[in-house]
Amino acid sequence: MSQKTVGVLGGGQLGRMLSQPASLLGIPLLFLDSGDKTPAKLIAPPPEGHSSHLDGPFNSRPHILELAEKSDILTIEIEHVNADVLAEVEEKGKCDVQPKPATIKLIQDKYAQKVHLEKHGIAVAPFFAVSQDASRDEWEKLGKELGTPMMLKSRTMAYDGKGNSPLASVSEEDVQSSLTQLGAGTGGKQLSLYAEGWMPFVKEIAVMVVRNVEGQVVSYDAVETVHKDSILRVCIAPLRMHDWDSKKAGGKWEESVNVRAKKLAEKAVGVLDGAGVFGVEMFLMQDGSLLINEIAPRPHNSGHHTIEACHTSQFENHLRAILSLPLGSTSLRVPAAGMVNLIGSSNSMEPIDRAVRTALGVTGASVHLYGKKECRKGRKVGHITVTGENDAVVRERMRTILRSMEDIDEEWIGKTIGSSPLSSSASASPSGAKSHPQPLVGIIMGSDSDLPTLLPGARILDKFEIPYELTICSAHRTPQRMVDYARNAAGRGLKCIVAGAGGAAHLPGMVASETALPVVGVPVKGSVLDGVDSLYSIVQMPRGIPTATVGINNSTNAALLAIRIIAASDPKLLKRVEEYAESLEEEVLEKVDALEQMGWEAYASERLKK
Amino acid sequence: MSQKTVGVLGGGQLGRMLSQPASLLGIPLLFLDSGDKTPAKLIAPPPEGHSSHLDGPFNSRPHILELAEKSDILTIEIEHVNADVLAEVEEKGKCDVQPKPATIKLIQDKYAQKVHLEKHGIAVAPFFAVSQDASRDEWEKLGKELGTPMMLKSRTMAYDGKGNSPLASVSEEDVQSSLTQLGAGTGGKQLSLYAEGWMPFVKEIAVMVVRNVEGQVVSYDAVETVHKDSILRVCIAPLRMHDWDSKKAGGKWEESVNVRAKKLAEKAVGVLDGAGVFGVEMFLMQDGSLLINEIAPRPHNSGHHTIEACHTSQFENHLRAILSLPLGSTSLRVPAAGMVNLIGSSNSMEPIDRAVRTALGVTGASVHLYGKKECRKGRKVGHITVTGENDAVVRERMRTILRSMEDIDEEWIGKTIGSSPLSSSASASPSGAKSHPQPLVGIIMGSDSDLPTLLPGARILDKFEIPYELTICSAHRTPQRMVDYARNAAGRGLKCIVAGAGGAAHLPGMVASETALPVVGVPVKGSVLDGVDSLYSIVQMPRGIPTATVGINNSTNAALLAIRIIAASDPKLLKRVEEYAESLEEEVLEKVDALEQMGWEAYASERLKK
Repeated sequence: MSQKTVGVLGGGQLGRMLSQPASLLGIPLLFLDSGDKTPAKLIAPPPEGHSSHLDGPFNSRPHILELAEKSDILTIEIEHVNADVLAEVEEKGKCDVQPKPATIKLIQDKYAQKVHLEKHGIAVAPFFAVSQDASRDEWEKLGKELGTPMMLKSRTMAYDGKGNSPLASVSEEDVQSSLTQLGAGTGGKQLSLYAEGWMPFVKEIAVMVVRNVEGQVVSYDAVETVHKDSILRVCIAPLRMHDWDSKKAGGKWEESVNVRAKKLAEKAVGVLDGAGVFGVEMFLMQDGSLLINEIAPRPHNSGHHTIEACHTSQFENHLRAILSLPLGSTSLRVPAAGMVNLIGSSNSMEPIDRAVRTALGVTGASVHLYGKKECRKGRKVGHITVTGENDAVVRERMRTILRSMEDIDEEWIGKTIGSSPLSSSASASPSGAKSHPQPLVGIIMGSDSDLPTLLPGARILDKFEIPYELTICSAHRTPQRMVDYARNAAGRGLKCIVAGAGGAAHLPGMVASETALPVVGVPVKGSVLDGVDSLYSIVQMPRGIPTATVGINNSTNAALLAIRIIAASDPKLLKRVEEYAESLEEEVLEKVDALEQMGWEAYASERLKK
Repeated sequence: MSQKTVGVLGGGQLGRMLSQPASLLGIPLLFLDSGDKTPAKLIAPPPEGHSSHLDGPFNSRPHILELAEKSDILTIEIEHVNADVLAEVEEKGKCDVQPKPATIKLIQDKYAQKVHLEKHGIAVAPFFAVSQDASRDEWEKLGKELGTPMMLKSRTMAYDGKGNSPLASVSEEDVQSSLTQLGAGTGGKQLSLYAEGWMPFVKEIAVMVVRNVEGQVVSYDAVETVHKDSILRVCIAPLRMHDWDSKKAGGKWEESVNVRAKKLAEKAVGVLDGAGVFGVEMFLMQDGSLLINEIAPRPHNSGHHTIEACHTSQFENHLRAILSLPLGSTSLRVPAAGMVNLIGSSNSMEPIDRAVRTALGVTGASVHLYGKKECRKGRKVGHITVTGENDAVVRERMRTILRSMEDIDEEWIGKTIGSSPLSSSASASPSGAKSHPQPLVGIIMGSDSDLPTLLPGARILDKFEIPYELTICSAHRTPQRMVDYARNAAGRGLKCIVAGAGGAAHLPGMVASETALPVVGVPVKGSVLDGVDSLYSIVQMPRGIPTATVGINNSTNAALLAIRIIAASDPKLLKRVEEYAESLEEEVLEKVDALEQMGWEAYASERLKK
């Protein structure tokens, strides 16, 4: 394949993960970093013709020039490099640099980055530059402009929460304490700061965007990211919205958040030069709007799940992008995935080992250790990716892993990925029969009078441990709610909707008109016409919009049909449906025996007693 | 994690692929092989505290002893090692050896391997030892016992077709020519041979079995393997049976081939000692029986797809098994996968590069190059794994890659994975409207008189490019055929069955009783009762066995329902169903315009003319 040697500034875990697709594709990587035991150097031997990787800081001019001398193209796995020297290399024209040094330089200064994005009409949180020597008046003015609390941030060298300090008020005391936290007075240096409005986001979201040298752009689906102590801890794919009532979020959900997030991320990357992967972090606000938080000009921690979960990983696509190879598909190849960072809680590696041992026992968990021999609080020493057949399964697997981590408690887990259990039969549906937070089936009915008819179906789903939700949604009395429910169902992770209705029985057909998911209709028998009215109304849909109709009042079969629909792409569940069918056979055969032994007269009178 | 250093005899591509999970889990690997540019050594730096891997032959006593000295456990990535020295190491007790040296030694001698398996009641092809100096009478006798053609095989050092020679007859001429091919007379050495009956297999199958030091056993699902010039070329997962008529295959399909193959493989590995992965190759015969072909005591080429396609790869599980770590899940994490070996067709690397470039443009294709700088005919230089949402998609992707290989022609592709196209709309269903070889939907009808009613549904599937089959299957006139069809449907890769029936209309419900897949029933209107008889018969199923019923004669909706069922786990298809619904809306809105412009009197008379 490509015989071009890629010089990489930085030899940390991102470099380590770059080296894996590089070896698969035969791409030679030469790393520049200090020491010979960095995560990347530990597993990536130097390319042929080189006795070693380069040993030196990735911001040292002579070292960068030496790397450029030995490489055909330079790229970065960390943005805190010497961008001026990269610009010098670029200018010389002998060695390509991707992404562009100007982009790296811009991104290093978070304030300049935001000014640049805002100038190009890209939504960011409100912000103002501020000097550490600002007067009382200036602070007061800032407080009025941005409101409090606000965030005081270092313009440069800020990452994983370092360089950020929340400011509860603009009082002299609070300002002083924040400035001290950010390092004011230390060594007499002048801080370079800006202030940002407090963002009461609903979720944090990230999109990895890839652009190759030719300008072709693809992006991965948006993921939900959850930070703990300002460090990314958990990442969930695909992104789900759990508030299906659009009114709650200001009615802005028409276009899925995923689609809007990808568009915004691509637009933002569109105002930056150069090829490679860009990690775009965003806030999803209460009103459904999206704001850019920040952009990393390299593969990003929120894209690590792509190694197992997507057709082409962000690392392989970064290499493809800078080497003018065709970009790989960004689609998920699994139904659902999650990522949990392994982060030091102290100097001891023991808690990490425990989490890893737990993960080795979890189906679908892939452990990635970065080869770091020493641990310290807040240090990323590895991550674990989990894949599975649906959201509920992935979250249950993540819960098992998170529970083995000493700095994580049940409350944090509940807040982050939900605390409902799935594994044991008794607790398959949350206690007291409440809706599961990651349902695969939605049972809806036009009226609570249909509940007794639909309960047997719910119990079948309990029996099969299928996560589901159950609610009321009337076609005639809550038409908007019905439309919202149907339109958001697929995006929330549902795979099938079971709708029960009597009389005119419009609900199943109307719901089917507003979703692409299969809708199973249960005709509910009313006081007249024996349910035939509902049956005809549900089954005789016009060509183009199908409903799957089951027998009158037969919610059991509706649930079993929903289970078969899920089982069509879940071999283990399919096996359980087969076993269920066998159990029905055995049940009848027992009756055959009883009939034979008791005689039919006795059997009939026994049966009457039941 | 484990601090044990694993010494690996052999540093080829299997060692290279072992090194990847080893680095993820922090397991130090030390390789023994000749030269410093072997595939494994090229990408795996020596463990900490070692300046290099061991340079020497993996059958050299001093080198093996040195490796044992430096390791906590020895394992192999090739079986042609010095097993006697390994036994010596084992005996000393300082360094563990897995799998057991006795197992490696046994497997090195294919004749002894077969004797051992046969002794333990494990089905193998009939075989006899034979000497190169056997008399005419002895050859004649052999010919009678085994029949001709037969295979003449070397007992040792046979792989990738080397050491095998087909014997068309036991005539003096044929025997001489075979013996010469196997090396008789070269250097005066005495050949160690045996003869094996010719196996007219239906398919070749492989199962990877994993056993850890504690004796826990798991196995991967069986895969279909296809050889070309006696070298594995293509591997397909999951294994599918394409003959659903059990009578054709002697009625032995009751237990799925996959289940039987896994049982047989586990039984075979059960009579061998030691931990690790065992690759078990089998023949599936015309009558449905399975015979063991041979066993490799290590990760195997037919398990390479497990890297991308399964929760835990065979390489990671090999390490887990020998290091007493919990075994990882062997389940597929994708719906379907395939593997294509990159094999030299000459000394030139150019054809390999071309195939790799093709693969980089194929969604779901992952390229694995082994770092070999030189190519030669028959040399494995890499492989490509393909994953996808169903069998048809994976095969289409494999076809694209196979077509770029110079030693492969369309006939071989057709024979191996089918030649039917899927990509272009016009050819989505094979020309002349014939059944697709990897259908997702099966349309069946009780009588050909139902065909006109079901055709609109078939055309909807064409429109959506869903691979399907269409056939006749009568509940009353071909009951056994119906049962066979239903029972084999899921194993053949179908995700949904659409069944049309009129009158008593038992077909959908009876089929639903014999499969766990969702069954969509289309009530066909007969000459009396307006189809209400069929509707009631299809929809009013007893509790426990559901059918998804659509409107009378509405096969369009049945097909759309089948599509929605598949789309429930296929986001791209879901998007297309949404677009289809939008197109229906646009169609109606055009009519609104026409009505407005023409007036309703003119519109009505226009409409009558159509």
